[in-house]
Amino acid sequence: MKIGVITIGNELLSGFTIDRNSAWIGQKLLESGMKVHVRQTIQDDFSDIYDTLESMWDHWECDYVIVTGGLGPTVDDITVSVFMEYFDDKHEFDKEYWSILKERFQRLNFKMPNLNKNQAYKSKKGQMINNLVGTARGLHYTKDHSSLFKTVKVALKGGPKKSHFFALPGVPQEMKSMMTNYVLPILEKDLESKVVCKSIRTTGVPESILQEKISDIIEENKDSCDIAFLPHRMLGVDIRLTTSDEKLIKTLVDSIVGRVQKYVYGYDSDKLEEVVANLMINNKLTIATAESCTAGLLSARLTDVPGSSQYFNGGVVCYSNELKHDLVDVNQKTLDRYGAVSEETARELAVNIAKKLKSEIGISITGIAGPDGGTEKKPVGLVFVGISYRNNVYIKKYNLTPNRNINRELTVILCLNEIRKILENSKEI
Amino acid sequence: MKIGVITIGNELLSGFTIDRNSAWIGQKLLESGMKVHVRQTIQDDFSDIYDTLESMWDHWECDYVIVTGGLGPTVDDITVSVFMEYFDDKHEFDKEYWSILKERFQRLNFKMPNLNKNQAYKSKKGQMINNLVGTARGLHYTKDHSSLFKTVKVALKGGPKKSHFFALPGVPQEMKSMMTNYVLPILEKDLESKVVCKSIRTTGVPESILQEKISDIIEENKDSCDIAFLPHRMLGVDIRLTTSDEKLIKTLVDSIVGRVQKYVYGYDSDKLEEVVANLMINNKLTIATAESCTAGLLSARLTDVPGSSQYFNGGVVCYSNELKHDLVDVNQKTLDRYGAVSEETARELAVNIAKKLKSEIGISITGIAGPDGGTEKKPVGLVFVGISYRNNVYIKKYNLTPNRNINRELTVILCLNEIRKILENSKEI
Repeated sequence: MKIGVITIGNELLSGFTIDRNSAWIGQKLLESGMKVHVRQTIQDDFSDIYDTLESMWDHWECDYVIVTGGLGPTVDDITVSVFMEYFDDKHEFDKEYWSILKERFQRLNFKMPNLNKNQAYKSKKGQMINNLVGTARGLHYTKDHSSLFKTVKVALKGGPKKSHFFALPGVPQEMKSMMTNYVLPILEKDLESKVVCKSIRTTGVPESILQEKISDIIEENKDSCDIAFLPHRMLGVDIRLTTSDEKLIKTLVDSIVGRVQKYVYGYDSDKLEEVVANLMINNKLTIATAESCTAGLLSARLTDVPGSSQYFNGGVVCYSNELKHDLVDVNQKTLDRYGAVSEETARELAVNIAKKLKSEIGISITGIAGPDGGTEKKPVGLVFVGISYRNNVYIKKYNLTPNRNINRELTVILCLNEIRKILENSKEI
Repeated sequence: MKIGVITIGNELLSGFTIDRNSAWIGQKLLESGMKVHVRQTIQDDFSDIYDTLESMWDHWECDYVIVTGGLGPTVDDITVSVFMEYFDDKHEFDKEYWSILKERFQRLNFKMPNLNKNQAYKSKKGQMINNLVGTARGLHYTKDHSSLFKTVKVALKGGPKKSHFFALPGVPQEMKSMMTNYVLPILEKDLESKVVCKSIRTTGVPESILQEKISDIIEENKDSCDIAFLPHRMLGVDIRLTTSDEKLIKTLVDSIVGRVQKYVYGYDSDKLEEVVANLMINNKLTIATAESCTAGLLSARLTDVPGSSQYFNGGVVCYSNELKHDLVDVNQKTLDRYGAVSEETARELAVNIAKKLKSEIGISITGIAGPDGGTEKKPVGLVFVGISYRNNVYIKKYNLTPNRNINRELTVILCLNEIRKILENSKEI
């Protein structure tokens, strides 16, 4: 089963609108066990739309083509005209739908603009798809594989006898409603073998190291399961398994996790901060932060999770040396001798903030985010993380990048991951 | 000039990753006066990639083809092999680059896996594009229009003599760095007629009100300038003008800003935090924060700007009542009588944090982010912002949404905008 998606709109190409519709369509199809084969984004242009419909049929041999956008009432909405031309169809005015539309507008206390008459038509050859949340109806056509070339090609592959083309609105709610109520049921009926998908989320390890550790598993299963690596940010990599064999996926997940256990923090949509939050909640631990270069980013992340007041006590953003001394009681001698960005300062910050805020865990972050402020001995990207937990203090030193934003965000991820590892490995828990 | 974009990756088709890269590319090109003509998203599949390269050349007649994704070191990264095949090229091992890579891994305390050898090659016919922030280098090929068919077609249209193909990584920072430093300068050199684009950034006003205020300007110029409204989040709307008439755009921007001045905080990619930062730097002001429900988000945003230590002194994340009292000296009676989420607490927090951290500006945020913690009198979404500036204290009360994330992020935007307005309107400055 091959599915193609066409999204139409200049605003998508110029990037003013991020194409979330097609991501949603991809996820929805995957939930039902289907994959998108190809996606094309094009301008509101007659011949571009026509050619792309044709290539989905002829070149990509899609059984299902889902088109979004260009069904609105204004001049740049031309998808319907292209469909009419492509399927050699004509539309007629739909009185019944026109009165429904008029009634809807009246209920909203709007006068019905004549412009909307464009939306009150009925196709002769295709099927109209009802719009439960807006005005523009969708279109559904089927096309038979009747040309000799196509038939032979398809017959040889044992493929289906016809292809379906759906035109849906670009407005997210309207598209989603039609997908759920009309398109998906048709696709699901035709589906023979389902695809299942599982992600193993890792952090603190580059993708190449992960692959090395499981390369034999990938190789052995390459015909039955697709195993891919998805790096998010710099140090988080998902290992994603996709297959149509539901039993196999369980076995494979177990063997992969067996090999890379120490990097695994969760599955599918688990978030690192949620995992850390659960570790703290389950063990009745509280945490406090003293942040310098990340200036609140860690605190913000720790409190992204609803109910965070159960474990998060608070924190201090001690940007200057003065505040490290005044607010977190770092010894002036330590600052003078070792500097703010040092193991020693990180240690005192972590220990003192835990004590001051009466928390079991104290975290400190001090570093040089850049772009300025680096020296030969302490270059941009040098960061110390301190974790005080019960009677121990763990210090991590990182040499990150020249980029300010990356350094700040990466530090938060690395730090969360260290907390996770310490709590998971702690015998006291 | 026709530009095609190809994004490669199963995760894009399945919607696990939203394709922000191509939106960024579209925006970046537009800033330089160029438009993307077509975009295609395909699987990590050899023949799909090959065919799409071919169709960008043959069917879409693109002068520039930008490909992202599939340059990593793992098995599913096959873009390089396809480029080698398509351009009939061979790669050779690049010893010099291999030692650079090894050194980088050592700095992160990892042993270099042999797998990364895939990334240490050099093309014979193409040009390697340096990667300043990661390991995979990009590729740049040019293809001459030498086949008869192509030459005639192109000659008739007076088009260029060759097409450029760029392969860039899918990792956003790496792709962005190569686009900015390598690809854009090449495209800009070849550009003949520019599209110009200007955004007027507003906040604190709905788009329909904005449109009403300038509808005659839109109507009068509809044939020569495209004027669009782009809402970001809940309270920021950009008015975007696109035209090829550079003089016209200046006149139009002036007349529009004349009508909506009080909502305008900047232009194009100006960020609210940068505008606020500049106001503080230019007037030698410093700021301190006391955050409760936003828990560091405001501090993090204020320090997103390089050089923020010039104006940002520090802050306290006082999540609990205890900390509001202990760290920011809020009177216990105030907390008992009015509660933590109140005008009175916001006022004391703002005044005290300014005093404590010796700053001209003190900001407080206290509210109920949700999803829990709301009461009938103080529902989820109730937020107080306090701004202490010299001898005044400004308090803002907001009733936001039931959504935790929206409430936290929106509060930061609203707060930054209030600071901007106060500093811009202050007679003392």
